[in-house]
Amino acid sequence: MFPAKLTELPQWKRLFKEAEKMGQPEKHLRRLLQDQNRLSEFSRSGGGLFFDFSRQRIDQAGLRLLFELAEACNVQQTFSAMINGEKINRSENRAALHTATRCFANKKVMQNGEDIIPVMQAIRDNIKKFVEDVHNGRIVSSTGKPFTDIVVVGIGGSYLGTEFAAGAMRFYADKGMKLHFLSNVDIHNFGEIASEIHAETTLWIIISKSYTTVETTANTNLAHAFMRDRGLSPEKHIVTVTSKGSPGDDPTNPILACFHMFDYIGGRYSVTSAVGGVPLSLYLGFDRYERFLRGAEEMDQHAAEAPLKQNLPLIAALLSVWNNNFLGYPAQAIIPYASPLAKLTPHVQQLYMESNGKSMTTTGAKVEHETGVIIFGEPGTNAQHSFFQLAHQGRGFPIDFIGVVKPQYEGCCSSASDVSNHQELWANLISQPMALALGKTDENPFKYFDGNRPSSTILLEDLSPENVGRLLAFYEARTVFEAFIWNINPFDQFGVELGKTLADGIRLEIKKRNKDPKHAFTGKDPISAFYLDTIFNGRIHLDSP
Amino acid sequence: MFPAKLTELPQWKRLFKEAEKMGQPEKHLRRLLQDQNRLSEFSRSGGGLFFDFSRQRIDQAGLRLLFELAEACNVQQTFSAMINGEKINRSENRAALHTATRCFANKKVMQNGEDIIPVMQAIRDNIKKFVEDVHNGRIVSSTGKPFTDIVVVGIGGSYLGTEFAAGAMRFYADKGMKLHFLSNVDIHNFGEIASEIHAETTLWIIISKSYTTVETTANTNLAHAFMRDRGLSPEKHIVTVTSKGSPGDDPTNPILACFHMFDYIGGRYSVTSAVGGVPLSLYLGFDRYERFLRGAEEMDQHAAEAPLKQNLPLIAALLSVWNNNFLGYPAQAIIPYASPLAKLTPHVQQLYMESNGKSMTTTGAKVEHETGVIIFGEPGTNAQHSFFQLAHQGRGFPIDFIGVVKPQYEGCCSSASDVSNHQELWANLISQPMALALGKTDENPFKYFDGNRPSSTILLEDLSPENVGRLLAFYEARTVFEAFIWNINPFDQFGVELGKTLADGIRLEIKKRNKDPKHAFTGKDPISAFYLDTIFNGRIHLDSP
Repeated sequence: MFPAKLTELPQWKRLFKEAEKMGQPEKHLRRLLQDQNRLSEFSRSGGGLFFDFSRQRIDQAGLRLLFELAEACNVQQTFSAMINGEKINRSENRAALHTATRCFANKKVMQNGEDIIPVMQAIRDNIKKFVEDVHNGRIVSSTGKPFTDIVVVGIGGSYLGTEFAAGAMRFYADKGMKLHFLSNVDIHNFGEIASEIHAETTLWIIISKSYTTVETTANTNLAHAFMRDRGLSPEKHIVTVTSKGSPGDDPTNPILACFHMFDYIGGRYSVTSAVGGVPLSLYLGFDRYERFLRGAEEMDQHAAEAPLKQNLPLIAALLSVWNNNFLGYPAQAIIPYASPLAKLTPHVQQLYMESNGKSMTTTGAKVEHETGVIIFGEPGTNAQHSFFQLAHQGRGFPIDFIGVVKPQYEGCCSSASDVSNHQELWANLISQPMALALGKTDENPFKYFDGNRPSSTILLEDLSPENVGRLLAFYEARTVFEAFIWNINPFDQFGVELGKTLADGIRLEIKKRNKDPKHAFTGKDPISAFYLDTIFNGRIHLDSP
Repeated sequence: MFPAKLTELPQWKRLFKEAEKMGQPEKHLRRLLQDQNRLSEFSRSGGGLFFDFSRQRIDQAGLRLLFELAEACNVQQTFSAMINGEKINRSENRAALHTATRCFANKKVMQNGEDIIPVMQAIRDNIKKFVEDVHNGRIVSSTGKPFTDIVVVGIGGSYLGTEFAAGAMRFYADKGMKLHFLSNVDIHNFGEIASEIHAETTLWIIISKSYTTVETTANTNLAHAFMRDRGLSPEKHIVTVTSKGSPGDDPTNPILACFHMFDYIGGRYSVTSAVGGVPLSLYLGFDRYERFLRGAEEMDQHAAEAPLKQNLPLIAALLSVWNNNFLGYPAQAIIPYASPLAKLTPHVQQLYMESNGKSMTTTGAKVEHETGVIIFGEPGTNAQHSFFQLAHQGRGFPIDFIGVVKPQYEGCCSSASDVSNHQELWANLISQPMALALGKTDENPFKYFDGNRPSSTILLEDLSPENVGRLLAFYEARTVFEAFIWNINPFDQFGVELGKTLADGIRLEIKKRNKDPKHAFTGKDPISAFYLDTIFNGRIHLDSP
């Protein structure tokens, strides 16, 4: 499917020349922005979002070359192959079908001889039924009371996407249920949630594809003990989201309900599967969850069908490759000017860095260029008062600014300034990308700004469930498009295995010592032995180790 | 004070050669770690913390050169000058005396002819008195009830440090007061807090040095309106932390209390001043706050007095410069294996990136090397299930791992594994730095790990207020030591000014349009005009702009 070695493509080589050109003074953003048509030529709308890349360091020639690169790399064909169920996750011989979880269209997607679209519909129907039963008091706690708290037990892909979506749509949370996330194995995480919930009316949603994730198992065991200590019946308080036949889907272990996950939906792409579906529907109501899915579907369709030059996530992916491989930026910030989108950045940080932090092509050859960048960020205007000093006068990095046209709270004019808080927020959102791009010359060296800092601006009309879904699917599509350009596999994650293997060895030592206080760690390397001694001693030997 | 141009120092040039050497196979961390004395030679304890840099990509020769660099740059002398009140913030002609806020020693620190140590003591005494009056019910709400909620209104340096410290010490929050942070001008931030607090028993702490910070002013105005709408008297619910004589320190505007800030304590260094002191003392009790200060003081003394080769924050600074300028890493992660330290990273992100994101030396010459890196991170083990794929198999970046020997919650053995949650956390904390350092060869290219990823590990014995103070002061000292090596000014932040200036222009347009619906934005550049139109129209014109 991938035609030639990326670095040997003529487009790849010409892009380096183009990047060199962008270093010339007449290609400074200050100059590019003098073109009165800059915005109309370097912005697109589609899939319900607006995408302005007028402040990226690129001109028409560069953009044309990027489009040629996308064509040479067959990225749109690969995207189609993905949504149609081809096993494009080659290293694991799996499909990647997160788009099927929100496919309401009349189409078939075959997987191992079965059309999975009705399978996804059936899971949604089950979620709807279960959630309505909870909301209507037909399913109640073991003491017969309506549930008031939901604890999502899951980590990584079983957690971050749901946290983002729940935060973004929290104005719709009118079901009287509080949502908690128990992700970290750190006992502080459990201890704090235990002190906040009403044990008697808490529903625990255990999410793990294998149901053997160490952190999730440890926390599930604590949850069981916590309930039993309070005379509650855990089986009446637990729902699982897991693979068919996993230890969490064991008919001899009765629970309230089990919803299935599939190997063709990776954790970090699973928000629109039962992973997000169960907690989000409980928290927001199934109808809002479905609206969220329909927004994501709209962006999927846009990503799949919009022509190359109109395709928002594909253009965003090309610009990201441009900034990374050709202009040399190693990191990218995502700055939503909307507090409810605060958890978008940690979600995309996982989605993107776990997908694209790879060094091998899909066929196992070492890549000869940089792959994924570091993603970080905090909401604006907070970020302006935090790390933007470095953005303006230190090393530059590209930024995705995200704006929401209409806030969930209306009005609230601050009497002192005749400007509402929302308008004040927007005054900053309009100014920052421009200040970064333009810079400012000044005789005082401390007030001199180089400018030429690239950014995009993405607009949502409001924080409706549809728009949150669109934004989610935009970043998912952007992420895989980038991988398709590089011909890396955005769906495996072998990089997390080595740490797990080493942890198995350390855990074994801990178990031995727990059983035998005389067990010494002499079999381990001196550094690991030092730390093992430290935790069993309960103090740091502040002399030399 | 700074002897020669940094890049012309012989040590600087020799460090490049040394860095080149580290690229050789026999200098891979896998090889360096075969030395059984690696940990004892490449770790230090001091100021109450333990600092292990055995997994940094450095050998004895490199370390010696870094120490020579520190001597050549007079960094310890500059640190002494700082704590003794010299005006080392040259661009603003100010001292930088955050260390004085926690100086309990019998010493004088003169500033403009006045010993400020008693001034700091007097502020602490005032805070103590005020807080005890609140806790004992001598100061009550305008309706005569004890306060239950605290809202800290402040942004950037008036917010992030306090959020970190409050989160880290929240187990000590036994005063029955909930703490909220109203930082962002985004109306969603105000709206959400307004829906959570008990208006009648809420104490608002307005924190702004100038008392003209746009975001803080807008939110303060909303708070006034919110209270008046509910028949409450704002003056009985408000405390300010601000400069003497600012609009927040106006005797004709009565409030509960005003505590002073000083121009010689920068926002991002102000946690141990009244900025953190008032909210933290209310939340935790004054005694815990004072213990926090004493921990910070201990680290200050260590940073000031420990010899170069034993000085934890100075060694950390040298390693950061090494990783950045010589090994070429543009970013650094901070990964606390302790959920309560989750907000350390955003705090240090501000502290470090705002301090060291500079391009000019203290004398206004353009620096000829990279300065501050990008700081990011999430707590472990969460980060392992998020972006660590990229750390292991994508581009490497240095990491500060932070471990806490004793958790605040005891025991909690998960019956399934005979390993407690805290031990499981530690099994991972021990394994990850090692996996990153060692890597793994494998015939399967997808399971191949380069290794040689550098990291440090910092240990706290527990989350006592003293240790949280030590950790805070460690990162403060590390930050300024780095700046002193580069001879940049870590105390100004002119980079945030340009965005503010442009926002003034946009705000003016908004005001005009608020008054006159016919006002058109034709005076602005086309991009700004497009966004202004968009927010006034309340929708995105999805046709071409």
